[in-house]
Amino acid sequence: MKPSAARRMADIAPFHVMELLTRARQLEAEGRSIIHMEVGEPDFPTPPQVIEAASDFIRGGQVFYTPALGIPALREAIARFYADRYGIDISPERIAVTAGASGALLLALGVLLDPGDELLLPDPGYPCNRHFVRMLEGVPRSLAVGPETGYQPTAEQAAQHWTARSKGLLVASPANPTGTMISPGAMAGLAACVTELGGALLVDEIYHGLTYGCDAITALSLSDEIFVINSFSKYFGMTGWRLGWLVAPPRHIRDIEKLAQNLFISPSTPAQHAALAAFRPDTIDLLEARRTEFLARRDFLLPALRHLGFRIAAEPRGAFYLYADSSPIAPDSDALARELIEQAGLAITPGLDFGENAPQRHVRFAYTIARDKLEEGVARLARHLGR
Amino acid sequence: MKPSAARRMADIAPFHVMELLTRARQLEAEGRSIIHMEVGEPDFPTPPQVIEAASDFIRGGQVFYTPALGIPALREAIARFYADRYGIDISPERIAVTAGASGALLLALGVLLDPGDELLLPDPGYPCNRHFVRMLEGVPRSLAVGPETGYQPTAEQAAQHWTARSKGLLVASPANPTGTMISPGAMAGLAACVTELGGALLVDEIYHGLTYGCDAITALSLSDEIFVINSFSKYFGMTGWRLGWLVAPPRHIRDIEKLAQNLFISPSTPAQHAALAAFRPDTIDLLEARRTEFLARRDFLLPALRHLGFRIAAEPRGAFYLYADSSPIAPDSDALARELIEQAGLAITPGLDFGENAPQRHVRFAYTIARDKLEEGVARLARHLGR
Repeated sequence: MKPSAARRMADIAPFHVMELLTRARQLEAEGRSIIHMEVGEPDFPTPPQVIEAASDFIRGGQVFYTPALGIPALREAIARFYADRYGIDISPERIAVTAGASGALLLALGVLLDPGDELLLPDPGYPCNRHFVRMLEGVPRSLAVGPETGYQPTAEQAAQHWTARSKGLLVASPANPTGTMISPGAMAGLAACVTELGGALLVDEIYHGLTYGCDAITALSLSDEIFVINSFSKYFGMTGWRLGWLVAPPRHIRDIEKLAQNLFISPSTPAQHAALAAFRPDTIDLLEARRTEFLARRDFLLPALRHLGFRIAAEPRGAFYLYADSSPIAPDSDALARELIEQAGLAITPGLDFGENAPQRHVRFAYTIARDKLEEGVARLARHLGR
Repeated sequence: MKPSAARRMADIAPFHVMELLTRARQLEAEGRSIIHMEVGEPDFPTPPQVIEAASDFIRGGQVFYTPALGIPALREAIARFYADRYGIDISPERIAVTAGASGALLLALGVLLDPGDELLLPDPGYPCNRHFVRMLEGVPRSLAVGPETGYQPTAEQAAQHWTARSKGLLVASPANPTGTMISPGAMAGLAACVTELGGALLVDEIYHGLTYGCDAITALSLSDEIFVINSFSKYFGMTGWRLGWLVAPPRHIRDIEKLAQNLFISPSTPAQHAALAAFRPDTIDLLEARRTEFLARRDFLLPALRHLGFRIAAEPRGAFYLYADSSPIAPDSDALARELIEQAGLAITPGLDFGENAPQRHVRFAYTIARDKLEEGVARLARHLGR
């Protein structure tokens, strides 16, 4: 008799887009050209300042474990970043440096969720979030969101779905897959509502810095009781380095440290020393130039998709995604995605990867490729649709 | 009302040695000299070949996400390592590259343990293991082990403690904190016993390569049904890079991939490219020279501690630890450790960090410092004890 898999594995889905990516790689190996609009990572290389800091550090060979919550210099640099960019005072003691935003989320949920505890999550949303909850034997509760609320949950909705087992609400601003944001007023409403209900508000701010025509306000400016998750992956262009951070309410930090010691020992040491250069003024200048380029890509792709018949009702103001209602074009987004890759040489992500709220009617386009490739992608799409 | 911490946090202990380390750093800041025999990481820098591979890779700036189970070249290199070193054929498909052995353990237990499922663990043992089980709402069950079985559990003992809720047994060879190994015959016995009971055997092999006067046999040579956890941290000298691997039974790999995609996205990209150089013959030559140095350190420290009255009954044949019965010298190992740091300038780890099996009678000495420092540490210990 062989041991069975844990029950949670039946509820944990793979990334469906990975199958498409595998198929894309096969086609490319056969000599076919594929335009990649499915990839959720910036195409820009790691900033040279960051590379240089990493190289200088590792050349010394002293790549040892660090404190579980990160090297003090980086925790202080992140605190200074909050002062410089948002004008708020965050103690470095509240900052845990982690292996990507993934590590931050595991720590935050690990100190909060008991088995059976519910976490409220918008749907569509980043698919891993509900699997982190399931991993810890918590219960993910979906809040169906649509364009009428900018694909973000409202305080009323959270209150309506709150039960005696609800422990918190996790939102993202800007959000994946929709690129929509939560206004400062709405965020204050969510914070007040969740606090009133005795729960925790967790805010994913990993797309901060990638907002267009507006700046994001960190939820940390509203209350010390909010958990904020952030990352060096997106704005700072450091995906493969696997580094992020968590800002937690002061009374949870000791537990977070214990959990980090046991689960991770410490975050990547080269990545931490590399990230010290991420906040340098000349690095920020480079990142802001990239942000301008992302804005130009959005401003090309958004009207082009609408012109082809995709409905994008809520204005995407951040991240690098457009979440489109594809039902005017095809009844089944999964079939459309498969058709596009096989027949048109274009890879996009079907709604299936983002939840159970009308996934067959939606697709996600990522603008993480250069404008000439975006233009070619749109041309292929137009030809395929006979426009 | 503020949300309470999850119940698991009451059961997850911090590393007690961290408090000692903090105290040591304070004393050093005051100008006191401290000999560090508490640290569980090799003092050797990352091998220069590994540094060079990392530098060459990151200079290109293309530090993007990798497949969740790691880059194919590294999975293949690990498979070749099993062929070269152990003479066994392991498919790269069975290998998951992870963020340290910590990531490997979380994946293995994540696909195996349901809430209430028990995992059998030797005590004393690596303290994080039971906390990983607790994190997943499993139940760690301690098997008290002593010098009479080389601080390793026997098949009889595992069978005696097995219940209807037992899902597996996790052992380590060489073990932390004892440095003892499981013979090939005993490992086969454990595997047969656990298989017969319908459970999984998990073997921590992170100290492989650091064995003295003998070579370790990988448990993978016994059965395809064993989970093996390994790491680039110890033998390969890459602690701060946070890279390890898991070899899993073929039928669990798809679940492990799903879980890795969701929990981690991917392991550190610079670390993966760095690790490609870890298996080069000239790197292995360097690592073998370091192994010889560890052997010499053990051969100095073991008789020196026995001479001072510490009882080390089971021969430590691997890792870089000596686990000593300190009861002939002091009734309370925690008090002894505090006394040594304050009065003698010597840091060691009290038994408290390794479980509940007579911790007050034991301490762990690490020989992760150069011989002249080890000699100074022993001299300080002798003076303190009035020898």
